[in-house]
Amino acid sequence: MSQSLHERMIVVDGLQVGGSWPRKLFEELREGGVTCIHTTSVVWEGPGFVLDDLGRWRRRFEEHADLIMPVYSGEDIDRAKQLGKTGVIYGFQNSSPLEDSLDYVWAFAKLGVRVIQLTYNNQNFVGSSCYEANDSGLSRFGRNVVSEMNRWGVLVDLSHCGDRTSLDAIRHSRRPVAVTHSNPLFFHEHKRNKSNEILKALAESGGMFGCSPYPNLLGENVTIDTWTEMVARLVDLIGIEHVALGSDLAQGFDTGERATWVRMGRWSHQIDYGAGRPGTPWGYVPFPDWFNNSSHFPRLTQALLDRGFNEDEVSRIMGANWHRFFGEAFKPE
Amino acid sequence: MSQSLHERMIVVDGLQVGGSWPRKLFEELREGGVTCIHTTSVVWEGPGFVLDDLGRWRRRFEEHADLIMPVYSGEDIDRAKQLGKTGVIYGFQNSSPLEDSLDYVWAFAKLGVRVIQLTYNNQNFVGSSCYEANDSGLSRFGRNVVSEMNRWGVLVDLSHCGDRTSLDAIRHSRRPVAVTHSNPLFFHEHKRNKSNEILKALAESGGMFGCSPYPNLLGENVTIDTWTEMVARLVDLIGIEHVALGSDLAQGFDTGERATWVRMGRWSHQIDYGAGRPGTPWGYVPFPDWFNNSSHFPRLTQALLDRGFNEDEVSRIMGANWHRFFGEAFKPE
Repeated sequence: MSQSLHERMIVVDGLQVGGSWPRKLFEELREGGVTCIHTTSVVWEGPGFVLDDLGRWRRRFEEHADLIMPVYSGEDIDRAKQLGKTGVIYGFQNSSPLEDSLDYVWAFAKLGVRVIQLTYNNQNFVGSSCYEANDSGLSRFGRNVVSEMNRWGVLVDLSHCGDRTSLDAIRHSRRPVAVTHSNPLFFHEHKRNKSNEILKALAESGGMFGCSPYPNLLGENVTIDTWTEMVARLVDLIGIEHVALGSDLAQGFDTGERATWVRMGRWSHQIDYGAGRPGTPWGYVPFPDWFNNSSHFPRLTQALLDRGFNEDEVSRIMGANWHRFFGEAFKPE
Repeated sequence: MSQSLHERMIVVDGLQVGGSWPRKLFEELREGGVTCIHTTSVVWEGPGFVLDDLGRWRRRFEEHADLIMPVYSGEDIDRAKQLGKTGVIYGFQNSSPLEDSLDYVWAFAKLGVRVIQLTYNNQNFVGSSCYEANDSGLSRFGRNVVSEMNRWGVLVDLSHCGDRTSLDAIRHSRRPVAVTHSNPLFFHEHKRNKSNEILKALAESGGMFGCSPYPNLLGENVTIDTWTEMVARLVDLIGIEHVALGSDLAQGFDTGERATWVRMGRWSHQIDYGAGRPGTPWGYVPFPDWFNNSSHFPRLTQALLDRGFNEDEVSRIMGANWHRFFGEAFKPE
């Protein structure tokens, strides 16, 4: 029953972090019945890296055309479902590729970028991060950037942003914004998780929240039932129409070098673990056995059914919410 | 008498903004008896621009070797005085050329950059500006940058920074810092001018403050006596050993395009005047008749004597303070 539901549904993952992308990962996405992922490679990089990375994705779409396709709109997600492929939305986890240029928003939208997280782990030209001691909110440039993203249909992502930047962006944006990969602070204490104030403001403005089984954001040694318990409590707080997935799966990190870059970029000569934890390989706590690659998505469907959600509710959380939301968000004004 | 004192003195200008540099400007510096200027071209630019701009300066030093020479140390200022040339210190008015890389501090120090203003008019990776509604202080990267600047003998300049970033930097820096071109807020109300709290913290930490006759920072339609009155009141507040010149002269702006870039860079599509004023050409209020080019420096010497400062005091304000201070600040740890 649940497998059959899973096969019928549109399944969308709000964020998967890009390392390398061997074909095996695309096969697992198909095995897991995943219709669409939002992926991101940018953490500290500039515009030149994005051009290279979009080129790598263009070639991946050619090389693995039987498994994956690019997604720029809600209709593209429908098409991926019909074709039995996994659609890939391209976004940034940092506004660093914009440098300080407002015109770059338009240029990257034109190139197919559909999501920009305003800040990664540090303050930048736009706003501030959850890891900074102080968050100044949206800067002057930041307000211009959000308005320009609204105009060209680039979704504002607040996952790593600080509280004030998040609230400023929710209020300043003319269109609903998203937290693609995080968890509620009320369930697990972590700088990356979001307070009730932000959760409510997000929902009231029509936004979307992607829940993650990433142990640092959920708690270590917890079960899949712990994750569905969190989802259920979040649904009670903000309503099922605002709750979705954002796994934060990070695969294809073949070496510590990439993992260290994700944490420390070029900004520190001292070890910094970001959302990671000392004593683990490169600061990473591994994903749990019950969800550590894309073939495991049907388990989430089953666990949500076990939690007592009905099929309509499960299909919203597993993908219908992102499908509708992305479809709206990616339209230019 | 004053001319003879002026000729004997080492005269140092804490900041002149770079546009183009026709030979006429170097001739005026010699006519004005200016031993050394700190100049800056970077307002929003990145590392590539700096390499180009340092190349332009290298060629200027060759072409106008009878008038100018590079300055990297206190001894170089002595040498400029002995040779009857004007020494040029190269700095940034924004930490933007560092991008988010801590190693770039060392690289630019190696290339001869001796001063970095932490922020220009907007928030950046390091800190925040006096024009932002909120100032988060030094970021995580910002603290690393200040420590690295301390290490390699790159002076921290706070002229355009916000209050919290300024106070954070004064406290975090292991070495005295400077405000190269600003005025006291108690004398003229302007976002670019500094509060008594900052003035006192700066002086207590051994810092230096450069006073400007720039009308937006001093008041329009004021006389040279107004400027010396301000200098005298600042000396009373923080002590003569912390007070110097920072003219903020901006010449060689042949077109509005450069002036517009200085204000708006790429960060806004709406007019923004920065320290300028609507209704003036490109937002600029012209410098006063009593000080609008480098040949006018002897007038400042005379006016300070007229205000009642003795020769030793005048020579400190006009250059001896910067000479000693730069000499210390530019030594690596």
